[in-house]
Amino acid sequence: MKRALAAALLAGAALLAQPALAQQPAEPGAAAAYAPLFAAELERARGEVEEAIAAGINVPVPRDPGGGFTHEQHKRNYRTIYLGGQLYRLTGEVRYRDHVRDLLLAYARLYPGLGPHPAASNQVPGRLFWQSLNDSVFLVNAVQGYAEIRADLSAAERQAIDDGAIRPMARFLSDESPQVLNRIHNHATWACAGVGLAGYLLEDRDLVDKALFGLDKSGEAGFLRQLDLLFSPDGYYAEGPYYQRYALLPFVVLAAAIEANEPDRQIFRYRDGIVLKAVHGAIELTHDGYFLPFNDAMSDKSLKTEELYHAVAIAYGATGDPSYLSIARWQDRTVLTSAGELVARDLAAGKERPFRFVSRLMSDGPDGQAGAVALLRSDTTADGPLLVVKNTAQGMGHGHFDRLGWLYFDDTGPVVTDYGAARFLNVEAKRGGRYLPENDSWAQQSVAHNVLVVDETSHFDAEVDLGDATPTLQLAWSGDGPTRYSIGEVVGAYPDVTLHRTMLLVTVEGLANPMVIDLMQARSASAHRYDLPVHFRGHVIDSELGLQRNLAARPVLGAANGYQHLWVDGEGSRAEGGRLTWMQGSRFYTLHMRPPEGARYLMVESGANDPEFNLRREQAVIQRVDGARDAAFLSLLEPHGRYDASAETTVASTPRVRDLRLHRLTGADLVAIELIDGRRIVLGLAADTSATARHSVRMDGRTYAWTGPVGRFDHAATKEQK
Amino acid sequence: MKRALAAALLAGAALLAQPALAQQPAEPGAAAAYAPLFAAELERARGEVEEAIAAGINVPVPRDPGGGFTHEQHKRNYRTIYLGGQLYRLTGEVRYRDHVRDLLLAYARLYPGLGPHPAASNQVPGRLFWQSLNDSVFLVNAVQGYAEIRADLSAAERQAIDDGAIRPMARFLSDESPQVLNRIHNHATWACAGVGLAGYLLEDRDLVDKALFGLDKSGEAGFLRQLDLLFSPDGYYAEGPYYQRYALLPFVVLAAAIEANEPDRQIFRYRDGIVLKAVHGAIELTHDGYFLPFNDAMSDKSLKTEELYHAVAIAYGATGDPSYLSIARWQDRTVLTSAGELVARDLAAGKERPFRFVSRLMSDGPDGQAGAVALLRSDTTADGPLLVVKNTAQGMGHGHFDRLGWLYFDDTGPVVTDYGAARFLNVEAKRGGRYLPENDSWAQQSVAHNVLVVDETSHFDAEVDLGDATPTLQLAWSGDGPTRYSIGEVVGAYPDVTLHRTMLLVTVEGLANPMVIDLMQARSASAHRYDLPVHFRGHVIDSELGLQRNLAARPVLGAANGYQHLWVDGEGSRAEGGRLTWMQGSRFYTLHMRPPEGARYLMVESGANDPEFNLRREQAVIQRVDGARDAAFLSLLEPHGRYDASAETTVASTPRVRDLRLHRLTGADLVAIELIDGRRIVLGLAADTSATARHSVRMDGRTYAWTGPVGRFDHAATKEQK
Repeated sequence: MKRALAAALLAGAALLAQPALAQQPAEPGAAAAYAPLFAAELERARGEVEEAIAAGINVPVPRDPGGGFTHEQHKRNYRTIYLGGQLYRLTGEVRYRDHVRDLLLAYARLYPGLGPHPAASNQVPGRLFWQSLNDSVFLVNAVQGYAEIRADLSAAERQAIDDGAIRPMARFLSDESPQVLNRIHNHATWACAGVGLAGYLLEDRDLVDKALFGLDKSGEAGFLRQLDLLFSPDGYYAEGPYYQRYALLPFVVLAAAIEANEPDRQIFRYRDGIVLKAVHGAIELTHDGYFLPFNDAMSDKSLKTEELYHAVAIAYGATGDPSYLSIARWQDRTVLTSAGELVARDLAAGKERPFRFVSRLMSDGPDGQAGAVALLRSDTTADGPLLVVKNTAQGMGHGHFDRLGWLYFDDTGPVVTDYGAARFLNVEAKRGGRYLPENDSWAQQSVAHNVLVVDETSHFDAEVDLGDATPTLQLAWSGDGPTRYSIGEVVGAYPDVTLHRTMLLVTVEGLANPMVIDLMQARSASAHRYDLPVHFRGHVIDSELGLQRNLAARPVLGAANGYQHLWVDGEGSRAEGGRLTWMQGSRFYTLHMRPPEGARYLMVESGANDPEFNLRREQAVIQRVDGARDAAFLSLLEPHGRYDASAETTVASTPRVRDLRLHRLTGADLVAIELIDGRRIVLGLAADTSATARHSVRMDGRTYAWTGPVGRFDHAATKEQK
Repeated sequence: MKRALAAALLAGAALLAQPALAQQPAEPGAAAAYAPLFAAELERARGEVEEAIAAGINVPVPRDPGGGFTHEQHKRNYRTIYLGGQLYRLTGEVRYRDHVRDLLLAYARLYPGLGPHPAASNQVPGRLFWQSLNDSVFLVNAVQGYAEIRADLSAAERQAIDDGAIRPMARFLSDESPQVLNRIHNHATWACAGVGLAGYLLEDRDLVDKALFGLDKSGEAGFLRQLDLLFSPDGYYAEGPYYQRYALLPFVVLAAAIEANEPDRQIFRYRDGIVLKAVHGAIELTHDGYFLPFNDAMSDKSLKTEELYHAVAIAYGATGDPSYLSIARWQDRTVLTSAGELVARDLAAGKERPFRFVSRLMSDGPDGQAGAVALLRSDTTADGPLLVVKNTAQGMGHGHFDRLGWLYFDDTGPVVTDYGAARFLNVEAKRGGRYLPENDSWAQQSVAHNVLVVDETSHFDAEVDLGDATPTLQLAWSGDGPTRYSIGEVVGAYPDVTLHRTMLLVTVEGLANPMVIDLMQARSASAHRYDLPVHFRGHVIDSELGLQRNLAARPVLGAANGYQHLWVDGEGSRAEGGRLTWMQGSRFYTLHMRPPEGARYLMVESGANDPEFNLRREQAVIQRVDGARDAAFLSLLEPHGRYDASAETTVASTPRVRDLRLHRLTGADLVAIELIDGRRIVLGLAADTSATARHSVRMDGRTYAWTGPVGRFDHAATKEQK
């Protein structure tokens, strides 16, 4: 079993496709034969481990929170253990084995005497780290490194490490922390992976069963239950892309170990191949390589992370899908496993094919019925136009109160933005690198998102439990053709208001960029204040909002629920609708707004009531209407023109859309868009969103008839309009 | 003469080095033989000109300001004329000749009837464009394109274009606009180039002489006088890097034409080779390829601009210096001349060598006595650490009131920043793309820079003429070794205050990044308010400033001179000195501050009193002292640590400098820096800045003796300190 474990831990799913690759110690000097990407990885690992060897064994008594010295040192140590083990296998050099051994022996001496970490805060405390999550990550890495050297140690060394480090760590993360392993949560996955890997390595069935089925081995918790509940049938992870990335590693590593040790379980075919769906889905949830930053997320996280180096290598090994190679090319990294070796070799052999990013509806919820993320793309490139509609469920504690929210990206980067998390990961001066108070007071609140906010309170009154109990309804969707769309609804975000949103990504002949159209509707029996923010990136170029500017004093927008963090730069109203143009990078963007009658526009910026300078300062425009019951906000985001700093040329800095109107008719709304060349596009949006319902309405003497939720009618310019 | 002109116009200085390259019409089909960079250029030009041919002749009556349709169309047209001419020479295809001819004939019909441009504003109005500057650029391009087809036109076509377009354009830019051509200014250089090129092409000695010697041909104005007065002996252009870039093209193009037509003038050897010095200097005035953004400058301007493609090709042709090839590699562009062909060929042949960016003192003023820019670099890479000390003179109308100012860059980009110009080039909605009112009210004002501001007024009371009359004294400089420095002084920026600044770039063994040390001194017989801002980029991570924060209301700092544009986020004081840490990209920066006793710290951000959202919102910390006569502000900027988002590791997020003290002694100041490892570095800064003066002072029982303006003493940690 030990050999199988080492192989599985290291080769991962590659074993499935290519059992001949089961890893054997390499011949010394064989490195020259590796493909460039793998050879570079080997050299990088050598450099890192040699540096660690030169620095000597340093296993300090735990003391610091994230970012502090002992925290970073224990992280360095588990990397050294992991990489050192791989290097020993690949090179046969005993110095790597000996250093890994000595490190593990030092932990075997330190660990048994440790109590709860002194810097523990609101997370479950670890022993080596301030939160037990990091202890799990330590164990996952340490077991994999240890597995490569264990057979070549003396019996005494083996026993010292088994009994002083690996087993007590696994016990701490299982029986001694039931509140961790028994959860349905990524922290539990890491714990299961650590405990399960330790179990296989130590041939300890009890540990393995607890990892797979929960502490009581009933199957109500544990790894398989997590596979059932944490992913939707489409492979969407409940907490969102940022944590999907983070969670992938223990899922794929433990799955590979299960496959190698208990092939009868067919773990990679479990639940219709959910593990590989999760890897593919994680890649789809990126723009230009960066994970979509909704929910608690750091916006600087990309596919260039350790988790995805592993996941891509394993997925390629398991599927042979050459589009994974293009991701590896972009990553310019792989892992030191045989799957990584295969990636490097096939890349060098030119087998790469582009990863086609296509429109997707990724369902949310274990049964796929809790909502969805709609990814609407007008081309297949990694950095092309992308409209994200977030019709997911809450997403647990890291979820934000952003039902029916949207984001927009294109080759200039994020355009309509999500703040993500208020956190400086691993920066000690920022509360030890943990989530900041402003994550609750701002980042998770509804007003920090592109969603409808009622009466200045957040969805579900910002109660996670209420949110988790309420699904979003994904009513209709289409990812093809010139009129892509998503229609969603949520009942219960507010006691007496139903939220309904239709978002479209519309391409128009002759226009270089697609347009985003948003019809946000609220329905209520009672009167409310409705606020609809659009958070955007860029410099304001022009506006028609009837603004009264706050030039020498900026009031704060409100008192709570995120409003206390917004400065107000100006407020205005304009009977004929509003328009705001900004510039980002080489492009202009105009947001055309048609809010309900009497609406006002607020230009705001985050950063008020921020005593520790924790917030980024980002802008939004808010459409606000007071005393409304039913209300419809029609908006159109038009990317246009081009600014070229090198050539000093500018084209189309003014919008192509000349007019935008919403006609509310019986059974359907018509959205009428007029371009400056006289062409008109009419979109029919039916109240009945079923695919087969037929609709017919009249406007301006014409009949518009269509089937299904959305109809489209393009009119050429008449002579007078030209 | 015509052949010589065409060659000179197109090949530029390449002719000097390689006369055999004098351009002949290429054989059709020869393109396959070109090196990749040149072949790509040819294809790009083909694409651009074919598109123009397909669009047809469109020579509209001038109407719009910068960024508007007619403005951009006339720009497209001159590019088409220029490129079409080159394509005709390189390919022999008559369709290029005919399109260029038809365009020029259309201008010959339009131009004679034009009056002043309807969108003219405070600049000298042009005919085709809102400012005559663009008309000059038009002529420079048009003549070069025309020169390539003129010999192959009918006599009637030639006469129509000569008399309807070229000659009247040249006349407009000379006799009819004496206020342009007779200035000593980049607008005049463009006019001279247009007029001079036209004169050579039309064999019109009168035009040539006016271009070279001014309208009265006395030599008091004109091109040669501009070469005398606009550049310092080191090739620094009086208006700064942004305009140096812009001005280069007419200088090198007209110089090449002079060389070809009147080789006896030895124009490229004129004034010790000033034209080539200007090209080299322009490249040195960049960081990571971007021009240093001081004075009126757009920060998005890089070496990837038409002017520099020409300049680099010409400089390489003239000197054969292979370091220019590495610049061309970065540009990934060249020009369609034989110099461009040579660049492409030699790049393909692997002749490239790195351009070594070294520390430089570039004098300012025609005689080099008006001040200097000190570029202090600790390595030779394009994006390495760079301390810029701006001890220049005023720089005329585009100069800012920023005597003794500084900037700092490293591989994360600009760190200590200059706002540059308040302008959105070519963006019509932003005042037609012209300089914005905030350029005067904010961007040029002293408080927008990293300079000492006295009594909330700008240097020279923001009067350009006063500034132009007053030099900066560059007292001492050293660009080598671990202690690079610049010492400058200005007398007259304020009626009764002398400003004196010592800036050092100090490398310390074991520290990955150099430190910047700043000793800013004011001397006055009367009491003043002194403000010393540091404008920085990044997110505030930590501070020890004793701040009282303005959390729910942000007052405006002042009423005028730029102060009206600053919001105040907080104000504090701290007897033991201040510390501010921010993070940018992967690095942390700590500014340690030791202002005079009683000083306060102000955290501010630009953007107040900005009715049109014209300002970027950028932060600064200001050290303020009131009622002081003589005052010394000691600051130390320490880059440190590393944040790695991919690997999720953070090191050294807290500073390595533990203590910083200023000891004011007789004849010298001592700056004492203590590191957290106990080492101490003492810098001696002598009042007498002569190179040979010897100094000796005592502190803490030690004697510090050195020769010259700056001494350095590194002390190992004592046992107790460790």
